[in-house]
Amino acid sequence: MSNNTTSSLWRQKVHEIIYEADTPAGKIFDVVLLILILMSVILVALESVPGIGEEYANQFIIAEWIITIFFTIEYILRIISINKPSKYIFSFYGVIDLLSTLPLYLTLFITGLNALIAVRALRLLRVFRILKVTRYIGEADKLSKSIRASGPKIAVFLFAVLVVSIIMGTLMYLVEGADSGFDSIPKSIYWCIVTLTTVGFGDIAPVTPLGQFIATVIMIMGYGIIAVPTGIVSAEYSKEVKKDNPNYRHVNTQVCQNCLAKKHQDGAQFCHKCGYELHD
Amino acid sequence: MSNNTTSSLWRQKVHEIIYEADTPAGKIFDVVLLILILMSVILVALESVPGIGEEYANQFIIAEWIITIFFTIEYILRIISINKPSKYIFSFYGVIDLLSTLPLYLTLFITGLNALIAVRALRLLRVFRILKVTRYIGEADKLSKSIRASGPKIAVFLFAVLVVSIIMGTLMYLVEGADSGFDSIPKSIYWCIVTLTTVGFGDIAPVTPLGQFIATVIMIMGYGIIAVPTGIVSAEYSKEVKKDNPNYRHVNTQVCQNCLAKKHQDGAQFCHKCGYELHD
Amino acid sequence: MSNNTTSSLWRQKVHEIIYEADTPAGKIFDVVLLILILMSVILVALESVPGIGEEYANQFIIAEWIITIFFTIEYILRIISINKPSKYIFSFYGVIDLLSTLPLYLTLFITGLNALIAVRALRLLRVFRILKVTRYIGEADKLSKSIRASGPKIAVFLFAVLVVSIIMGTLMYLVEGADSGFDSIPKSIYWCIVTLTTVGFGDIAPVTPLGQFIATVIMIMGYGIIAVPTGIVSAEYSKEVKKDNPNYRHVNTQVCQNCLAKKHQDGAQFCHKCGYELHD
Amino acid sequence: MSNNTTSSLWRQKVHEIIYEADTPAGKIFDVVLLILILMSVILVALESVPGIGEEYANQFIIAEWIITIFFTIEYILRIISINKPSKYIFSFYGVIDLLSTLPLYLTLFITGLNALIAVRALRLLRVFRILKVTRYIGEADKLSKSIRASGPKIAVFLFAVLVVSIIMGTLMYLVEGADSGFDSIPKSIYWCIVTLTTVGFGDIAPVTPLGQFIATVIMIMGYGIIAVPTGIVSAEYSKEVKKDNPNYRHVNTQVCQNCLAKKHQDGAQFCHKCGYELHD
Repeated sequence: MSNNTTSSLWRQKVHEIIYEADTPAGKIFDVVLLILILMSVILVALESVPGIGEEYANQFIIAEWIITIFFTIEYILRIISINKPSKYIFSFYGVIDLLSTLPLYLTLFITGLNALIAVRALRLLRVFRILKVTRYIGEADKLSKSIRASGPKIAVFLFAVLVVSIIMGTLMYLVEGADSGFDSIPKSIYWCIVTLTTVGFGDIAPVTPLGQFIATVIMIMGYGIIAVPTGIVSAEYSKEVKKDNPNYRHVNTQVCQNCLAKKHQDGAQFCHKCGYELHD
Repeated sequence: MSNNTTSSLWRQKVHEIIYEADTPAGKIFDVVLLILILMSVILVALESVPGIGEEYANQFIIAEWIITIFFTIEYILRIISINKPSKYIFSFYGVIDLLSTLPLYLTLFITGLNALIAVRALRLLRVFRILKVTRYIGEADKLSKSIRASGPKIAVFLFAVLVVSIIMGTLMYLVEGADSGFDSIPKSIYWCIVTLTTVGFGDIAPVTPLGQFIATVIMIMGYGIIAVPTGIVSAEYSKEVKKDNPNYRHVNTQVCQNCLAKKHQDGAQFCHKCGYELHD
Repeated sequence: MSNNTTSSLWRQKVHEIIYEADTPAGKIFDVVLLILILMSVILVALESVPGIGEEYANQFIIAEWIITIFFTIEYILRIISINKPSKYIFSFYGVIDLLSTLPLYLTLFITGLNALIAVRALRLLRVFRILKVTRYIGEADKLSKSIRASGPKIAVFLFAVLVVSIIMGTLMYLVEGADSGFDSIPKSIYWCIVTLTTVGFGDIAPVTPLGQFIATVIMIMGYGIIAVPTGIVSAEYSKEVKKDNPNYRHVNTQVCQNCLAKKHQDGAQFCHKCGYELHD
Repeated sequence: MSNNTTSSLWRQKVHEIIYEADTPAGKIFDVVLLILILMSVILVALESVPGIGEEYANQFIIAEWIITIFFTIEYILRIISINKPSKYIFSFYGVIDLLSTLPLYLTLFITGLNALIAVRALRLLRVFRILKVTRYIGEADKLSKSIRASGPKIAVFLFAVLVVSIIMGTLMYLVEGADSGFDSIPKSIYWCIVTLTTVGFGDIAPVTPLGQFIATVIMIMGYGIIAVPTGIVSAEYSKEVKKDNPNYRHVNTQVCQNCLAKKHQDGAQFCHKCGYELHD
């Protein structure tokens, strides 16, 4: 940063625009990027819809080339402007950016490539770019922090769900068997998790009276287990709310006669500012 | 309001009855309106039931004309009695009121209009009038206030649901494909939200083992995400409950021997009313 | 109660046994009644199972006669022993007891009566007797009290669910129509409640993209609405827990040097038992 | 333990390794056992998958023999090393260990035994061994303790669910009947629990308008009931969190000038350590 050649200054400027958001140019870049990410996600989604994909094939290809070229420029600028390019290239977003941009260029050189489902799939990786949007939302950070804070407790809950699902899944496999759709233990475990989390697709459902009875036990057991994460998050959140305003809990209304200072300790006899004796 | 001609007085009276609810006449008007709104909603609902709609076609037409005429009179009175009629006409309810009343009159002039589904649909707009009922319920205001208070946090939660749904939906589209019903990314996202919110219709369900495994991850992830709004509302509500009665937390039972004053600060040495020394 | 003739004494004794539970005889009566109610409920349930009902028809008839005769004796004793029989006869349980006992006797006089589904249905009313069991569980009272305490708030929540369901149900009826199963507005409202409460049977499910989008909105909206009752109950319950043990919040460990009295007020200067000056 | 013969010392050593986990050898044993339990559970699950079970039959038999021999050695060592072998043999895990190990040995002597489903089922009992893993997770203990703490309240909730399900199940049986899948009262009760817990498989769903109306009532009622356990766990957990750090609620920052002691009572006038007069 110390050798201020023209090239270095230019790189510094680009770095500021792309990686930071506190200059007007940086903000505009961020907004444009955000819109393009959202557009590319919507494009990917729309292209997959049976009728639409084929009918507007040309428009999709044009839109895809525009977005891809922008993302390519962004990718190159990100590599150029950073001091250690490897740090970006091998980061999660670096890999996603490369893998989602490359396939379209390859179709220029290799014919028939676009037909390969595996190559088309790579383009769908662009969906992960939506995660970039999260950093624009301050509260998202708070949310993810609070979820991470209750991590070990949630892990225990997950383990409880798994143990119950494995045991109950095996039981249901024995009781119901392949005729009711419980044709393997992994599938029965899947059914158990579907039931425990109260999702209940109904693609598989117990048919025998005993199976239905066990299902009943699982459902009610699930309720016991599932109340726990809600309780945990609720309690953790309550704690955070209290941290925010520690004074709403007790208000000492004493005011020093001598210096009019407030917020005295409960039962304080001398003013914490001037030492004058306090009388309530 | 100052020029008290007879017409102005009459208008003022009507305004009082229709727009306000603190006179006996105003209250009666509100109750009658409420009953008619509910009746019209029930009528619209019943008319849509396959058998009933055709059998009692004549009765429905008569009932509809009675209700429509009442609502027409109400609409005209609302316009006449208000000082700036445009304020009502272009308000949300003004538009709803006009659009839900007009179609029946148009059927008199244009034959075959009633057969058009789009025109019949307009009549259903009357359902929105039920929202008017909400203002009669004091607690509804509190509820909506508390939901609005936790608005930004809920928005973050919604965004988390969306991001997870988009990424997981794309994944499921690749893993399951059209054979299992995941025939487009938007549909897969729809399935993802159905699963995350633990609704689980089962109209679409994963069939491949990998798809079922990812579904399991989504369900449990959903549980983590979904515990959050409950926790937030629960914590916010707790806070409100505490605001209501700040004194339930500590009761100081000291009474001054001199002036019998109560509610002394904890650790107070002198009465806060008369200055007499306190003894417990 | 004051004229102590033999008959009156006998009635008083029976009243004690049947209506009260603090004598040994009263307790035994209650336990026997409880077992018979549970047995009769299980009998009614088992008789309805396709295979079992026909195969053990005779055993069911015998068991039913035994239970019916006991309940008849109980019914007569309840009428005799109470001062104002009409108070019992026209109470909820009085009507249930009569209606569920009578049909079996009528089959003796009127042949073919047992075949009538309406008459068999009356016998099922005995299921309501299980509600009598609730009074033996102390905590049930607490639970129902806490639910009743948050009653008005729950009512607002119910109203919100209804308004959203009516509006969204009408919308879904227009968007999806009869082809997807939304063949009437009441049915669409039913589907809306199924979705809002996250039950999600899947017997009716949106098929059109727009319908699926609206369904998504309903589901997420449902989450917002549904977090509320949980939050309310959770906050109310927290309040009750705190009421139970007000001292877990602050422990004053001062002990009077003179009389060894404990539990002094915070900041107390003189012992609340002996008046001796306190030093911490 | 006092007669230190070689045999006794050896037994003591084995006991340390198997039953305790505070020596390096004991820890290694635990980790190996943990891995084998998980492997055996995964094996059991995979073997049940239709295609896989038959194709890799030989590999499964070899893997099963390896695991069974290890578990057999463990079983024998557990019996030898303990002072009162009967205490282990007739414990829950002792019975599970024996029943899940024995069948494979019996297949050596009795041909055709492996084909019997009942014998294969016994091998699945090994799944219960996964419960052993729980003791390695400290938090699991806390979780189960908190669930047990709110036990009686959860019991009341369960009873409420049962009473509502029995009454509503009977009602639905009468209203819907066998044509809609409600072909017996126990099945209707099963459906009721599925609905009350918001699982909603959809294998059985009401068809008649009245049935759908009652279903609506059950769903909303279910919401009222189900908010309760969440509220209970949430409140109980909040209480525990507060117990953990009682000082986050009030921090008295007074420090004695004389002895520098901290954590004074609120309103204390004299240091609780040295009796020197406190000034804030």
